[in-house]
Amino acid sequence: MFVRNAWYVAATRQEVSDKPLARTLLNEPVVLFLNGQAEICALEDRCCHRGAPLSLGEVTSAGVRCGYHGMEFDRSGRCVDIPGQERIPARAAVRSYPVVAKGDYVWIWMGAADKADAADIVDYPPEGDGWPCANDMLHLKASYIMVLENLMDLSHLSYLHRTSIGSSENDSAKASIDVRRTDRGMRFLRVMRNADAPANWTKRYPTGPKVDRWSDFEYVAPSTIKQYSGGVNAGEYDAGVREGAHLVRTLHAVTPETEKSCFYFFNKADGYARFEPPGTERTWKSTTDVFKEDAFMLEQQQLRMENFDEGRLMDINTDVARVQMIRVLKERLSQEQPSQEMAGAK
Amino acid sequence: MFVRNAWYVAATRQEVSDKPLARTLLNEPVVLFLNGQAEICALEDRCCHRGAPLSLGEVTSAGVRCGYHGMEFDRSGRCVDIPGQERIPARAAVRSYPVVAKGDYVWIWMGAADKADAADIVDYPPEGDGWPCANDMLHLKASYIMVLENLMDLSHLSYLHRTSIGSSENDSAKASIDVRRTDRGMRFLRVMRNADAPANWTKRYPTGPKVDRWSDFEYVAPSTIKQYSGGVNAGEYDAGVREGAHLVRTLHAVTPETEKSCFYFFNKADGYARFEPPGTERTWKSTTDVFKEDAFMLEQQQLRMENFDEGRLMDINTDVARVQMIRVLKERLSQEQPSQEMAGAK
Amino acid sequence: MFVRNAWYVAATRQEVSDKPLARTLLNEPVVLFLNGQAEICALEDRCCHRGAPLSLGEVTSAGVRCGYHGMEFDRSGRCVDIPGQERIPARAAVRSYPVVAKGDYVWIWMGAADKADAADIVDYPPEGDGWPCANDMLHLKASYIMVLENLMDLSHLSYLHRTSIGSSENDSAKASIDVRRTDRGMRFLRVMRNADAPANWTKRYPTGPKVDRWSDFEYVAPSTIKQYSGGVNAGEYDAGVREGAHLVRTLHAVTPETEKSCFYFFNKADGYARFEPPGTERTWKSTTDVFKEDAFMLEQQQLRMENFDEGRLMDINTDVARVQMIRVLKERLSQEQPSQEMAGAK
Repeated sequence: MFVRNAWYVAATRQEVSDKPLARTLLNEPVVLFLNGQAEICALEDRCCHRGAPLSLGEVTSAGVRCGYHGMEFDRSGRCVDIPGQERIPARAAVRSYPVVAKGDYVWIWMGAADKADAADIVDYPPEGDGWPCANDMLHLKASYIMVLENLMDLSHLSYLHRTSIGSSENDSAKASIDVRRTDRGMRFLRVMRNADAPANWTKRYPTGPKVDRWSDFEYVAPSTIKQYSGGVNAGEYDAGVREGAHLVRTLHAVTPETEKSCFYFFNKADGYARFEPPGTERTWKSTTDVFKEDAFMLEQQQLRMENFDEGRLMDINTDVARVQMIRVLKERLSQEQPSQEMAGAK
Repeated sequence: MFVRNAWYVAATRQEVSDKPLARTLLNEPVVLFLNGQAEICALEDRCCHRGAPLSLGEVTSAGVRCGYHGMEFDRSGRCVDIPGQERIPARAAVRSYPVVAKGDYVWIWMGAADKADAADIVDYPPEGDGWPCANDMLHLKASYIMVLENLMDLSHLSYLHRTSIGSSENDSAKASIDVRRTDRGMRFLRVMRNADAPANWTKRYPTGPKVDRWSDFEYVAPSTIKQYSGGVNAGEYDAGVREGAHLVRTLHAVTPETEKSCFYFFNKADGYARFEPPGTERTWKSTTDVFKEDAFMLEQQQLRMENFDEGRLMDINTDVARVQMIRVLKERLSQEQPSQEMAGAK
Repeated sequence: MFVRNAWYVAATRQEVSDKPLARTLLNEPVVLFLNGQAEICALEDRCCHRGAPLSLGEVTSAGVRCGYHGMEFDRSGRCVDIPGQERIPARAAVRSYPVVAKGDYVWIWMGAADKADAADIVDYPPEGDGWPCANDMLHLKASYIMVLENLMDLSHLSYLHRTSIGSSENDSAKASIDVRRTDRGMRFLRVMRNADAPANWTKRYPTGPKVDRWSDFEYVAPSTIKQYSGGVNAGEYDAGVREGAHLVRTLHAVTPETEKSCFYFFNKADGYARFEPPGTERTWKSTTDVFKEDAFMLEQQQLRMENFDEGRLMDINTDVARVQMIRVLKERLSQEQPSQEMAGAK
C-alpha cells in the first residue's frame, strides 16, 4: 500500500539520459529518458500494443518508439505514429507521469496528475549555500517504511554503527528527544550533551573528546526526510555557539519499488568540507558504507517480518519519533484509501 | 491452458538417446529415451512408487528401471518388474505418451492417446528437396503464445531485427498481407514489392539494391508454423520469375513447458545454400542470433504482462494475421475445454 | 505440519559457540549460542522491538543484545535491558526454547515447554562403547519425511547406492524384514543371508565374498532413527557368531527447516575402526558421499511431488517398514493436531 499522490525521487538527474532507464516504482514499470527536445519523460514501460517494454525501444524527437512493432509515443504518452496505419485511435496511449527536475533529482508523481504541484517538492539542498554535496543510492530488499523507521530512531547508532558514527550507549540513552507535528509531516530534535566524540569525527574534525551533538530530522510525508545534524564542543550547544561547528545536511528519499523493496536515495551536504583540501570524496564513501550497515540489517529484518504479525512487536521509549512518523503515514494512506488497513502497508 | 490433443515437438532426434532426457512439457514431467530395442519411449517422469524421477534411472531392454527402488517400466508405462515381489498390480504403471519420429524431430501427443494419428504431424522438410537444413532450440521464459504471435506480425522485423533481416520501416508499412483460414489453422502471405534488400542478404546473394520479398506462413494449430519465404529482384515477383530466387523454408515448433515458458524449436532449410561453397554454417548461426533478438524481447514482454490485463492492450492493422491465429487457437482450446476462458491461456 | 512436542537436533555441539548461529527450525527463526556463562541458549531470532534478527547482535553475560537498538535478552527470553528506559514491561520478551546438550548434539524442544523432558532424548552413542565416531550434516531441499522414508526402505541400496554400499538386486529381493511397533515408534530388522559382500566392504574388511548382513533400525518418532547394522561371513549370522563382525551404529536425526527442506544430521560409530590404523577418516567421508546420493534423489523427488497428489502413488512389498513408520508419524501428528490431515504433512 502506497501513497500515490506524492512526489517521489525516481532517479538522479545523471541517471536520466537519452538512453531509456527502466525502473519499477510503486509496483508500476516506468521508463525514464530525455527525448530529442531534452525534455524529461516518464512513461509506463509497457507498450499499449503488445505489452513490450518501451525501455527496449529508441528515443525519438517527441518521445520513444517501441522496439517491437514501432509504435511511437510522445512525452504525454499519446501515440503519434503507428507504422502502416493512418488513423491513430484515441486509446492508443500509455500512461505518462508528471516529472520535475529539482535539486539533484528527477521527481515523479504516481497519483492523479491533476493534483501534482511542483511547489510541493522539498527544497534541497538550500539554494546558494554552496556546500559540497554528493549523492548515492542503495537498492534494498526491504520495505520503504522500514528505511524511514530506521531514520526515526537514532538510538540504533550506538549499536548498528558503533564503529563508525555511533555515540556511546550511555550518551545515547541520555539523549533528549523533542517531537512535533508539522503541516507536512513531523520533526524531531535529538540532542546529546557532553557526549564522547564518535570515531568518524575525531579522525577529521578539530573537536575535543567531548561534544554536544544534535540531529534535527524533518519528515515530509510520505517518503522524504531532511536531516540537519551538527556537533560542537561540549557546552557550546546550549550557549548557542555554532562557530566551527560540524554541520551536515542530508536528504533521505526512499522510493518504493514493491512492498518489499525500495530505492534509498541519499544526498549529503557537508558544511565542514568547505574548509577541507581536495580528496574529501572519502566522506561520501563513508556515508554509503555506514548506510550499508543499515541495508544489511533492514533486509534481514524484512525477512523476519514476513508472515509475522507486526502487532506482536512492542514500542519502547526511543520510538517516540518513529511512532509519530507512522501515525502521519497512516493518515496519508487512509486519506487515499479510507477502507484499507495499515497492516497491508508492508 | 494448453491444447492437449495435438502433436508437439518434444525434442530433436539427436536429443533422444539411451541416456534419459528429462523435460517438462505442458506442465508434466516427461522422460524421453531409446530403450534397448532402440524404440523411442516417452513416459511420465515420476515413478508410481515414491515419485522419483525415472530420468535418474537406467535404460533397460524394455524401458527404464527406477534408480530409487528398482521398479521397471516398459514403453507402454506398464510396470514389468517389482524387486522382491511376484505379483505386479494393474495400477503399477506410469503414463506413457504416443511419440513419433518424423523429420528431424520426436513428436509427442499429450492428450487422449486414442485420438493420436501420426498422419496429422506436419510434413517438414518436404521429402526429396535435398536442401541443406539445420535446427536449433531456444528455451524461453515466455508463453508459447507470445512466440507464435511474434511470428504472425512480421512488422517487427523493421524494428527488432533492423540490423539483421529487417526491411526499412517504410517498405514494411507498405507490405500487402493476405490472410485466410485453412482446415487446420490459417495462413498469410505478406509481400513487399520494390523494397530495400535487407542487410543480411546483400552480404550473400547477388541481388540488386531493390527486391521483392514474400513470406508465406502457415499456422497449423495449435503450435506449429511452416514458413516459406523468398526474394527476387524488384519486379520479378509479380512476373512470376523464381529463377535464382532466395528461398527459405523454416519450421517453427513452439512447445509449452509451463504457462510462462516454452521450447522454441526451429529448422531452417536454405534453397540458396545448394549453390554455395562449404562454410555455410554461419547461415544457421545467424538464424539463431536473429531469434535471440526475439527471445530477449519476449522474455521482457512476459514480465510486463504478468499481473496485467491483456484486455487493456489494443490491436493495430499489422495484427491482422495474429488476430486470426489467436481466434483459431481459442477455438481449439474451447473445443477441449469449453468452459474455460482464453484469459487463462497465458 | 510438524510434531512440535518432541526433541529435535538443532545443531552439533561444535556449531554452538559465542558467535550466534541463525537457523530456521520448523518454520521458526531460531538463534543458538553460548552466553557469557557458557550456557546454551536458544531464542526466537526476532527481536520483540522491531523484528531484527538477534543473531546479528552481540552475546552478553546473560544472553544476547540486539544489534539494532540494543535490547538485551537473557536465556529465558526475558528482556533485561532497554537502553534509555528504566521500566521493562512484562511483554518485553522473545520466545525461548528448551535446549539440552547430549551426545554430540544440541537438542531443542519446539513445543510446549512444560512437556519437555530431557530423559526422552535418545541415547546415542551408547555410553562407554568407545567406538570412533564422526558426524556430518546435509541441508536438503526435501521434506524431512522423505528422508525418513528413504531410511525405512533399504531396497534402495541396490539401486541408488549400487556402486558403494549396495547389495546385489537379487540379494536385496530375498531379504527378510521383520517390523514391530515399539513404545516410542517402530523397529525393523532386515537380514540378507549369503549375499555378495558390497563394494565398500571388500576394500576394507577381511570378509569372504559371501556375507550375512543385517540392519536393525529403530525409529523414535517423530524424527530420529537409530541404526545398528552389521555383517559376518555367510552362515555365521544364524549361528550367532559375532566375532570379527563388521558393526556400525548410526544416528539419523532429521530436523525440519520448512515443509520442503530439512537438516539431515548423521553420526556414524564404527566398531571395526577400533582395529584399524589411523587414517580412517575416509570412512566418514564415504558415509557423506553415500548420503549425497540420497540427497540428490530426494531433492528431485521433492520437485516431482509438488502439486502432485501422493494418493496416486502405490505401495509395494518393500514398503512394509515405511508404511508402519508413516502410521506412527500420523498418529503423533494427529495427537497434536487432531483436525489436520496428513496430506498437509509435506
